[in-house]
Amino acid sequence: MKDKQFLMIPGPTPVPETALLAMAKHPMGHRSAEFSDVLKEVFEDLKWVFQTEENVFLYTSSGTGAMEAAIYNLVNPGDKVLSLVIGNFGERWAKISKMRGADVEMISADWGKAIDPAVLKQRLDQDVNKEIKFVTLTHNETSTGVTNDLKTLNEIIQEHGAISIVDGVTSVGAIQLKMDEWKVDVVVSGSQKGFMIPPGLAFLACSKKAWKAYENCKCPSFYFNFGAYKKSAAEFTTPYTPNISLIMALGETMKMMKAEGLENMFDRHARLAAGLRTAVRRMGLKLFVEDDSIASNAITSILPPDGITVPQIRKTLSKDFDIVVANGQAQLENKIFRMGHLGFVSERDLITAIGSLEMALTKLGYEVPKGEATTAAIKTMLKA
Amino acid sequence: MKDKQFLMIPGPTPVPETALLAMAKHPMGHRSAEFSDVLKEVFEDLKWVFQTEENVFLYTSSGTGAMEAAIYNLVNPGDKVLSLVIGNFGERWAKISKMRGADVEMISADWGKAIDPAVLKQRLDQDVNKEIKFVTLTHNETSTGVTNDLKTLNEIIQEHGAISIVDGVTSVGAIQLKMDEWKVDVVVSGSQKGFMIPPGLAFLACSKKAWKAYENCKCPSFYFNFGAYKKSAAEFTTPYTPNISLIMALGETMKMMKAEGLENMFDRHARLAAGLRTAVRRMGLKLFVEDDSIASNAITSILPPDGITVPQIRKTLSKDFDIVVANGQAQLENKIFRMGHLGFVSERDLITAIGSLEMALTKLGYEVPKGEATTAAIKTMLKA
Repeated sequence: MKDKQFLMIPGPTPVPETALLAMAKHPMGHRSAEFSDVLKEVFEDLKWVFQTEENVFLYTSSGTGAMEAAIYNLVNPGDKVLSLVIGNFGERWAKISKMRGADVEMISADWGKAIDPAVLKQRLDQDVNKEIKFVTLTHNETSTGVTNDLKTLNEIIQEHGAISIVDGVTSVGAIQLKMDEWKVDVVVSGSQKGFMIPPGLAFLACSKKAWKAYENCKCPSFYFNFGAYKKSAAEFTTPYTPNISLIMALGETMKMMKAEGLENMFDRHARLAAGLRTAVRRMGLKLFVEDDSIASNAITSILPPDGITVPQIRKTLSKDFDIVVANGQAQLENKIFRMGHLGFVSERDLITAIGSLEMALTKLGYEVPKGEATTAAIKTMLKA
Repeated sequence: MKDKQFLMIPGPTPVPETALLAMAKHPMGHRSAEFSDVLKEVFEDLKWVFQTEENVFLYTSSGTGAMEAAIYNLVNPGDKVLSLVIGNFGERWAKISKMRGADVEMISADWGKAIDPAVLKQRLDQDVNKEIKFVTLTHNETSTGVTNDLKTLNEIIQEHGAISIVDGVTSVGAIQLKMDEWKVDVVVSGSQKGFMIPPGLAFLACSKKAWKAYENCKCPSFYFNFGAYKKSAAEFTTPYTPNISLIMALGETMKMMKAEGLENMFDRHARLAAGLRTAVRRMGLKLFVEDDSIASNAITSILPPDGITVPQIRKTLSKDFDIVVANGQAQLENKIFRMGHLGFVSERDLITAIGSLEMALTKLGYEVPKGEATTAAIKTMLKA
């Protein structure tokens, strides 16, 4: 049906009406006192979500822009970077670092697995001369649906002394990430995920330890420059014309996030993910990530049943049920489909999605006991 | 009055209702066939506005992001860059190039003046060893309200052989710029100007000659990477999640631009600027740029009359007439006020603005013969 489309991809996510309507307003001047008031509040709220006392820089870019910001403001050509790779987005850190001219080493886990802390510890223990200056990693790997144990991995990095650079694009606001308490050095995120607004803004927070690397950085980025953004943040403004419309929308969703509270947000994401995993198993389908202790609370990767293809499932869900789910990426294309459940998503949406998936599979010839998966999910969500 | 505010700053500009409503829609998935169809048309339309056969890359960033894209994809540290500076935005090219590690030389004109082609020619003629690889310049300098003679300046640059890198942020779509016919190498622009949508998108087109410099660029930008954007453009997509909402809005304003036609758009901007200049003179005020042959058609800089300050004029226009005009930048702060008239601006808006300025000045104690400036502007616009 027209205008009925519901996105269950890992971003963009559904957007609340108040945020959409904020975007439909004429932009105000970005150098006005009125807009500075908005920024002042948004800057404070971002610190709250990032659980940090540091400034959170607000970039007009995609999440990848904030990833570039991290590397191009901290890493000098020739610096040694260790990239922990468990999927497509972990690889992106390595690619950006290579383009910057860094000496990149990778520790990779099979797609669908998390980084083993023992493997990281072993490698960093070997680095007695402290050649490794930076470790990049992904908190929640969107391409597979795996969440790394960031707290433990970061402890190992901090013991070694390297600077940790973390992709929190699909975790901040959805999955627990205590930046200051865990002593994470750099966290980046994007607007179209836990923040519940459309794509076009990215965020970056940087520890005092990482700031020293910025001060030693040769030819850093101008557009993403840490120093320029820090100076502007103190004046409740941005160095260059920002995306005013998205910031107004962010002001609205931040109010919603504060009303819900961080712990409640994390609990909601955990509850929805648990419900979906229960339902998938009840339908007799296989989860790509079978170990619940590393399965993402933001996105779930599912294997199609024998005889039915990923494109068939995506097409039926889209055409007959107005639900958009994502295909696998790279080597997982057509091997899995991925259902996003982050940001502006509630129990009601999960029930909708599970019921629709039951019906879609039945239409495609895979017999599912009707309603049982939905029932199982409801029970799980009530208990969780 | 609430919701009555009308922006006459050099961006963001007023936005048409169809574009605002497009922004209020739920974003669609950026990897969908439906969105590729939108991009396909937008990519073609951008070529038309830029008057080029080359791809126009669509970046999710401010205009400054596209400026960074140009420098960080083309200029290697140590390369010699000649920056032609006639104001704040011309200086920005020099700053970005310096941060990149380039060897930057500047030719500056007094603020309010254009670059003298003879001065550029003399300098480039001296450069017999072709040490100067790039020349950066501003087509329309927003901080002063001066338009450089880009066609002539670029001819001189092309004779020398350097690559021209042009800030067309407030000129593309408002002031004639024939990229291919004039053989301009790189043109950048931004969304919140002639394109009539809010800030958050930037554009860049690059000649085949400049592309060779990209191929020799060491550690270019990853996020703004020319190669990645070229590859994606061929597949009607973007390398990273784009600002979907703004692209939908751009699709709407592009329809309006095509319906009006390029020459009509340029004529309209010229007509409005001529009308405003006539009115300002009729009020007995001084134009900061007195030479009409270099005065911008996108923005007009005006000196306040004796005894009245720029903040007084801006405040009265804003509070009593809901019109926002810009202060001067840097050394021109409180020396001039700037009225933007680019993008979604019509004769009606100019009449509004001139009448309001007459009333505001009278309120502030400067006697203006009532209605005469408005009448003079109407006569000028009818003739133009």
